[in-house]
Amino acid sequence: MIVKYGYFGSMKAKSGHRDQVIKILLRAAEGVRAAGCHLYVVGVADDDDQTILVNEVWDSKEQHDASLRLPETRAAIAEAMPMLTGEFDSREFTVLGGLGLPPE
Amino acid sequence: MIVKYGYFGSMKAKSGHRDQVIKILLRAAEGVRAAGCHLYVVGVADDDDQTILVNEVWDSKEQHDASLRLPETRAAIAEAMPMLTGEFDSREFTVLGGLGLPPE
Repeated sequence: MIVKYGYFGSMKAKSGHRDQVIKILLRAAEGVRAAGCHLYVVGVADDDDQTILVNEVWDSKEQHDASLRLPETRAAIAEAMPMLTGEFDSREFTVLGGLGLPPE
Repeated sequence: MIVKYGYFGSMKAKSGHRDQVIKILLRAAEGVRAAGCHLYVVGVADDDDQTILVNEVWDSKEQHDASLRLPETRAAIAEAMPMLTGEFDSREFTVLGGLGLPPE
C-alpha cells in the first residue's frame, strides 16, 4: 500500500488576478517533480471568479515543506502573494493509494 | 490547457470501520479508469480515525456522474453506506492543469 502526503488547499485571488496566479502555480507545478511531488493539480471554483484550488501528493510532508524553502518556490510565492486576498484554507491527509499515483 | 472535472470529498466511517471502507474505495478506484477517470486518490485524516478523503479528476462531470450509476459503483456504495456516519462534505472544481495529469 502506498503511503504518501496529501494536501488540498484553496486560496482567493484579488478580483481580476486569478489567471495570473494560476500561471504562476502551473509554472511551479513543472518544477516540483524532482522535489518529491507526484501530483500538483491546479483548479478553479465554478461558483466564483476568485477561488483557486490546489491538490498535491508528495512522497512525504518533509519534502513538501522543504519545497517551500526552495529559491524558485519563494520567488513564486513572492510574485503571487500581492495578488491574493489572504484567505487560505487547507487540509492535510495521508494518501493510502488509488488510481493515478505512481507504483510503489 | 487541460480542462477537466475535479472533486474533493470527505466522508466519515463509523468507529472501527474505516479500513473496510477504504478497501472498498481502493477497489472502486481500479475500475473507474475506463469510465473517464484519471485520478482517484484515497486518503485518511491524520487527526481522527474516522475521516476518509477522496480526490478525483475526470474528463467531465458527466462521466463522473454516469459512473455513479454503474452496477459495480452502486454495489460498492451499497456495501460501504452502512459503515458510514452520513457526514459528507465535497467540493467540485474545474481542473486547469498541473503535474501528474495525463497529456491532452
